[in-house]
Amino acid sequence: MDVLELLDRARRGARALARLDGAARDAALDAIADAIEARAEAILAANAEDLAAATDISDALRDRLRLDEARVAGIARAVREVRAQPDPLAARREIGEGRSGIRVTRRRVPLGVIAIVYEARPNVTAECAALTIKSGNAVVLRGGREAANSNRAIGDAVAAGLAAVGAPADAVIVMDRSSREDVAALLGATGRVDLVIPRGGHGLMAMVDEHARVPVIRHGQGICHVYVDAAAEIGMAADIAFNAKVHRPGVCNAMETLLVHRDRVEAVLAALGPRLAVAGVALRADPASRAALEAAGVSADAATDADWDTEFLDLVLAVRAVDDLDAALEHIAAHGTNHTASIVTADEGAAERFLGEVDASCVLWNASTRFNDGGELGLGAEMGISTSRMHAYGPMSVTELTTEKLVVYGRGEIRS
Amino acid sequence: MDVLELLDRARRGARALARLDGAARDAALDAIADAIEARAEAILAANAEDLAAATDISDALRDRLRLDEARVAGIARAVREVRAQPDPLAARREIGEGRSGIRVTRRRVPLGVIAIVYEARPNVTAECAALTIKSGNAVVLRGGREAANSNRAIGDAVAAGLAAVGAPADAVIVMDRSSREDVAALLGATGRVDLVIPRGGHGLMAMVDEHARVPVIRHGQGICHVYVDAAAEIGMAADIAFNAKVHRPGVCNAMETLLVHRDRVEAVLAALGPRLAVAGVALRADPASRAALEAAGVSADAATDADWDTEFLDLVLAVRAVDDLDAALEHIAAHGTNHTASIVTADEGAAERFLGEVDASCVLWNASTRFNDGGELGLGAEMGISTSRMHAYGPMSVTELTTEKLVVYGRGEIRS
Repeated sequence: MDVLELLDRARRGARALARLDGAARDAALDAIADAIEARAEAILAANAEDLAAATDISDALRDRLRLDEARVAGIARAVREVRAQPDPLAARREIGEGRSGIRVTRRRVPLGVIAIVYEARPNVTAECAALTIKSGNAVVLRGGREAANSNRAIGDAVAAGLAAVGAPADAVIVMDRSSREDVAALLGATGRVDLVIPRGGHGLMAMVDEHARVPVIRHGQGICHVYVDAAAEIGMAADIAFNAKVHRPGVCNAMETLLVHRDRVEAVLAALGPRLAVAGVALRADPASRAALEAAGVSADAATDADWDTEFLDLVLAVRAVDDLDAALEHIAAHGTNHTASIVTADEGAAERFLGEVDASCVLWNASTRFNDGGELGLGAEMGISTSRMHAYGPMSVTELTTEKLVVYGRGEIRS
Repeated sequence: MDVLELLDRARRGARALARLDGAARDAALDAIADAIEARAEAILAANAEDLAAATDISDALRDRLRLDEARVAGIARAVREVRAQPDPLAARREIGEGRSGIRVTRRRVPLGVIAIVYEARPNVTAECAALTIKSGNAVVLRGGREAANSNRAIGDAVAAGLAAVGAPADAVIVMDRSSREDVAALLGATGRVDLVIPRGGHGLMAMVDEHARVPVIRHGQGICHVYVDAAAEIGMAADIAFNAKVHRPGVCNAMETLLVHRDRVEAVLAALGPRLAVAGVALRADPASRAALEAAGVSADAATDADWDTEFLDLVLAVRAVDDLDAALEHIAAHGTNHTASIVTADEGAAERFLGEVDASCVLWNASTRFNDGGELGLGAEMGISTSRMHAYGPMSVTELTTEKLVVYGRGEIRS
């Protein structure tokens, strides 16, 4: 595969797409959603081929790979939801008047060519195409080998949608039948790829670390914390911690470690421990919280040092008693991954310190960590959660797929 | 040199600095400006050592390296100007209410540890320290070998200023006596350096390309264009083009190529050509504009293909007649470096197309390219001009040295 030739096509696609107005980009999204619905049968047949070929994958991976009618309808709906968002490229900001009298403004523009390297979920193919079209970017989509047929069928539907309204075909390129070397070439294509967003496990991230010479924003690992302060209301603390762990344990904004102020360990764990046990949560606790759990009739393993640095992504929770807010902040600084942290407290001073000092893409006061999500925050659909601070910190919605250029209006001003 | 140990110090400095409020950071800047003034003699003595040792450098480089009393006073003044800017970390934005009822806001936070790798101008040492302190970031400063004594003396003044007000000493680290290998280690220190800003020539940039694994924002090359449209007012066009080329030809926002609509070539070059000739500008012109220049009594060399891709940084200008706005846009897309472009026209439709379609950090209508500068645009002092689109596009002022985290206020909300 000639990756550079493919990226030249994507660049042409980006230029053509950037010239379309918001209505034309929305029309393309409508046509893509229609094409996905119209081609549901073909997409499901392609998916069945992928499933038949995938004999050696885990049940969890198989479930993520599997499409059915409802899931295909969900993909089309997700494209329409992106279409319904405001146009990020319509944003204009007045900055002010320069000292020479020039009028200074900012205008939002696309990043250019975005590459997404991801693993087996075929819905990502359509959702990423929708987000990049909405934001005026061309996209190169490199999905996993396991989903190759599904991705190709969805890519065909996207292409049909673009063609139906005369939108540039090169705006969305599904890079199928590509080798590891092709991905390495993509990651190294300085000046031709404006951003790579990798979405996947450790193997993919290691490959990105090794080969990336273009800008990368990682959908980062989430070791998320809830800290229950001395001044917490116990019922609220138990509800938030339970929700943060149990609502959907396999996702990045689920809580992995619960920190409890030493004075409240008994009360909090008496309220929360039995609920976690009923929900099947395995507990890894330090001595003080383990004693409190056992007093509440809940068994727990002794936590090891490694537990504080583990993203369980499962019904497993590390629990630790801390002496005070400072100790909680220190624990989070040492073990957090800049993703999400929540404090439960009625003490505004403690909350303000926590919100100010915790370095995470999203910090919350009296709310579940599960709210660090584009939809829940009112930011719209997203590409993932950035924990990198550069360019995007938190959910990468369509706005984070753009940048601002300066647009200056003069009347003949020159610099003196 | 143990670069990783030095970066650990910088991380501690960043954490300590981030806990200071704006008034405390401003007090540190005042103290640094005072210390630079108080130590002017020591700084000049160190600079004299550098000048004496630098026997084999060009006159231009020697001038950039040289300090005198006025220049030292200018450095202190620049620090006070940064101090006088608004605190970028005071910014709070209301995003809205999430569907669960949570209140969603954004709050500006520092990036963390910033490294600046630069060449012989010693004033950069103090100015970069001021910008990073203002924005709550720790900085590692790696200047050129030629300025080592000057940088150390300025670094001592910065340290004295920090100490005078009890600000964290590790917030500003001058990485002197460092080898090329040390710089390579710095560029590769993933997770320990949040941003590297290189400022220098091709050799430095090549080193960055080879070794950087941490995020980089380049102060990019400026091949800047002025396009004089068919509907331009000739006097205004000549004034803007003259200013863009001659006002300060050695800087990145100076014009390198003038594009003129074919219908106006004679009129524009009759007005502009003699002024450029008097100013000593050497002209490299395509056949049509060369003929027009010669008709105005101005001699020009024939432009070569390479001229369209050259950042002259000197009193040299490439001139080209173009058939229309589309041809001008095509030329800029092919040869521009995403830095600065200006259109001179009375035609609002042509201006809007130019402002919309040119992909550059700053696009101007009826104003000189020289305005792409933080101070002139009202953005304050800057680290340079980013042409990279990711994170910053245009002048990197204190705001671009920060990011925003999400701060969420709840009343016990959980996700359902």
